[in-house]
Amino acid sequence: MPVLNDEVPDDGDFDAGRRRGEFDNIRPEDFIDGHGNGRGNPPGWLGREDLERNRRQVPMAYVEIVPVRIDQLGRVEEIGTLLRISDDGSIVDRTVITGRILYHESIREAIARNVAKDLGDLALPMIPQCLQPFGVAEFFPTPGVSEYYDPRQHSIALCYVIPIAGDCNPQDETLDVEWVTPRGADVENAIAQMSNGHGTIVRQALAWIDL
Amino acid sequence: MPVLNDEVPDDGDFDAGRRRGEFDNIRPEDFIDGHGNGRGNPPGWLGREDLERNRRQVPMAYVEIVPVRIDQLGRVEEIGTLLRISDDGSIVDRTVITGRILYHESIREAIARNVAKDLGDLALPMIPQCLQPFGVAEFFPTPGVSEYYDPRQHSIALCYVIPIAGDCNPQDETLDVEWVTPRGADVENAIAQMSNGHGTIVRQALAWIDL
Amino acid sequence: MPVLNDEVPDDGDFDAGRRRGEFDNIRPEDFIDGHGNGRGNPPGWLGREDLERNRRQVPMAYVEIVPVRIDQLGRVEEIGTLLRISDDGSIVDRTVITGRILYHESIREAIARNVAKDLGDLALPMIPQCLQPFGVAEFFPTPGVSEYYDPRQHSIALCYVIPIAGDCNPQDETLDVEWVTPRGADVENAIAQMSNGHGTIVRQALAWIDL
Amino acid sequence: MPVLNDEVPDDGDFDAGRRRGEFDNIRPEDFIDGHGNGRGNPPGWLGREDLERNRRQVPMAYVEIVPVRIDQLGRVEEIGTLLRISDDGSIVDRTVITGRILYHESIREAIARNVAKDLGDLALPMIPQCLQPFGVAEFFPTPGVSEYYDPRQHSIALCYVIPIAGDCNPQDETLDVEWVTPRGADVENAIAQMSNGHGTIVRQALAWIDL
Repeated sequence: MPVLNDEVPDDGDFDAGRRRGEFDNIRPEDFIDGHGNGRGNPPGWLGREDLERNRRQVPMAYVEIVPVRIDQLGRVEEIGTLLRISDDGSIVDRTVITGRILYHESIREAIARNVAKDLGDLALPMIPQCLQPFGVAEFFPTPGVSEYYDPRQHSIALCYVIPIAGDCNPQDETLDVEWVTPRGADVENAIAQMSNGHGTIVRQALAWIDL
Repeated sequence: MPVLNDEVPDDGDFDAGRRRGEFDNIRPEDFIDGHGNGRGNPPGWLGREDLERNRRQVPMAYVEIVPVRIDQLGRVEEIGTLLRISDDGSIVDRTVITGRILYHESIREAIARNVAKDLGDLALPMIPQCLQPFGVAEFFPTPGVSEYYDPRQHSIALCYVIPIAGDCNPQDETLDVEWVTPRGADVENAIAQMSNGHGTIVRQALAWIDL
Repeated sequence: MPVLNDEVPDDGDFDAGRRRGEFDNIRPEDFIDGHGNGRGNPPGWLGREDLERNRRQVPMAYVEIVPVRIDQLGRVEEIGTLLRISDDGSIVDRTVITGRILYHESIREAIARNVAKDLGDLALPMIPQCLQPFGVAEFFPTPGVSEYYDPRQHSIALCYVIPIAGDCNPQDETLDVEWVTPRGADVENAIAQMSNGHGTIVRQALAWIDL
Repeated sequence: MPVLNDEVPDDGDFDAGRRRGEFDNIRPEDFIDGHGNGRGNPPGWLGREDLERNRRQVPMAYVEIVPVRIDQLGRVEEIGTLLRISDDGSIVDRTVITGRILYHESIREAIARNVAKDLGDLALPMIPQCLQPFGVAEFFPTPGVSEYYDPRQHSIALCYVIPIAGDCNPQDETLDVEWVTPRGADVENAIAQMSNGHGTIVRQALAWIDL
C-alpha cells in the first residue's frame, strides 16, 4: 500500500543544528538517490514534527513539474498525469509531479529527485539550461486566497515543463502515469480531475508551450 | 542608529500554531504597512528563535529586487543601489533590495513591502503583471556551492526588475540609495562593491533588460 | 468610414533604395507620431505594391499587444478588446492590438505607435524593461498549418501584455475598446469572437499573467 | 573555398507570386534538408535581387542560436563558437549560429535548419518546448542605433540557447566549432572576437543560464 503523505517522516534523527560545512561532501546523487543504508532519506529531510512546525511558520519552496514527451523538433506530443490515492486514502486523485526543495538541495537536484520519486530512476528528465520557471504558483492554507490551495502549508512552487526521455516506472504513492495528447477531450478530462489548482498549472503549461 | 539585521525580532508573541482562518481578515496593506499599534510587524513575522530554526531546516523564500528608473518607452535609465551598514556593523556594504516572503504573504505583497521598507512609502513600485522572475538565485550557507552565499541560511530568491515611479526616502538599515546609469564605470564600480552574489544578480538584470 | 486595411498605402513615394544613413536623424517620435505635414506616414511605411511583394517573400515581423488595466500591485483587473470592421467591411470583428514593425523601427517604437494608432495618443502604454515576449505567434497564409492564420502573409508576432495607464480614444479602424474582467463569461465571449488565432493569444496572456 | 554570404542565391527560379496552397505538401524536412535534386535550396529561399530589395524594405526575421553542451542535470558545460571567414573574405570572424527564417518556415524548422547548416546533420539540437526566446536582438543597418549592427539589413533576431546532443561536423562557411567553458578567460576571449553585437548575445545567454 502506498504511503499517502508527500513527505514521509524518517526516524527523526536529522539534526537541524548541524554546523556549517556538513554539506561539503554531499553530492547531487545523494539528494537524488537518498543516502545511507539502501534507499534512505536524502540530506535535508525533516522529521514530522519539524516539518509541521516549519509549514506553519514560513512559505515552503516547491517545484511543480509537468512531464511531457516531445518529438524531434521539441514539440510536445503528450503530457503525463499521475494517478495517486488522495491524502485521506479514500479516492484516486490526479496530479502532476510536485515536491519540496530540501535544505541545501539545489533546484536542479529537486527536479531530478522528484521525477525519480514518481517516475523511477530511468525516466531521464531533460532539465532546462535556465531555471527561469514558466510560472510561480502560490498555494495558501486558507481556501479562496488564490486558486492554489494546500491545507498543509503556504508553499511557493516554481513551475517547469520537463521532457521525459526515458522509461517510466511509477513509484511510491504514484499508482500510474497516463499520457494524453495536449489537446482535446483527454487533457481536459485530466485537468478536470485535478484539485486545488494543479489543473490550472497544467493549463498554464499548455498555454506557454508551443503547440 | 539603524538596526542591522534584515529581520528584526519582535517581542516573540507570534503564535506559530494559530489555527487556519486566522489570515482571513488580513489585507495586503497589513503586510505592506505592518499592523497593530503604529508600525508594528506584519503578520507572519517570526521571533529570532523560530526564524533561526527555520533557517537551518528549510530553504527560505526571498524576493530580490533591482530597482530602476525608466523613460517613456520603458527603457532603463538608471539602476538603484543601496548603501547599508554590513551585518557586523563595521563597514558599508552595497546591495539591492532583498527580503523574505512571510508566511501567508503573497509575492506581490512581499515586493511592495520590501520596496517600502528600503525606499519608503512613496516609492511607487511598478509590479509586473506576470510574476515569472527573470532568474532564480540559490543562496547556500556553505561557501563555494554556488555564486550565491548567505551564512545565515539556504534561500531561494525570485529576482525581479522593478521600476520606481515615485520618490525614494531611504529607511531602516538603508543609509542611502544611489542611482547609476546602466552602462559604464559607475555601474561596474557598484557591482564590484556587492558581495555574496548580489552583484551577479545585477549583472543578470543588466543582461536581461533591453539597453 | 474607417479604412479597412491594417496598412494604408501612402502615395508610394517611399524610396526603398535609400542609402545607409538616411535614418540617422529619425527619432522615436517620428515613428510614433508619423512625420511630415500633419499626420503623415511614419518612416519605413511601404506602398501597396512593395508591401504585397514582401508579404509573399519573407515573414513579416509583428507585435501583438494585449492591453490591460492594472491595480496598484500590478494585478490585471481588465483586459481591453477592440471592435473593428472586418477586412471585407461586412461584419464586426474583435481583436487585440496588432501591427507591423516597420523598417528601421525599434520594437518599443512599434509598440508605442500601434497602441497610439488604436487607442489614441493619451493611452500611456507602460512598455516593459525587457522585450522578452510572453510568446511568439507564427501566422501562416495556409489554413491549418498552425492555429494562427493570416491570408495576407506569413507573420511572426512578438506577443506582449501592456498596461494602459491613460485614457483611450479609439482611432482609425477601431470602432470601440471594451474592457472585460480577466475571468468569467465576458472574457470567454470576447475570446470566442476573435478569429484566426488572436483569441488563443489572449488565452495565453491570461494563463501567463498572475490572476 | 567557402561561400561567404549567409544566403547563397540559387538560380533565381523561386516564384514569389506562387498561389496559396503551394506549401501544403511541404514537410519540415524539406526546410531542414533542402529539397529537389540533392541538396538544393529549401522552399522560401530567395534570389539575390529579391533578397536585397526585401532587406531594404522590411525587418528580416532571424534566429540567433548559442549552441551548448550540457550535463545530466541540464547545466551548461561548454559553449560553442563558430570560426568563419568574414564577409569580405579577408579575416577570420567568430560568431554563433545565425540565420534567416524563410517564408512559410516555422521557427522550429529554422532552428533545426540553421544548426544543420553550420554543425552538420548529426548535431541533434534539443529544441525547447516553448519558443519564448531569452531575448530579442534588433540589428540595424545604421551604426550606433543599438549594440547590434548589420550593414545588410534591419533584422529582428529571436535568441535561443540550444543544447547539442550529437556530433558536430562544420559545414559551408563555418571553418570550425570551438567549445569553451562558460566561465573564465576562454569565453571572454571568444566574446571579444565577436563583432556587431553577437558577443553581447553570448553574454546575455551566459547571464540567463544557470551557471
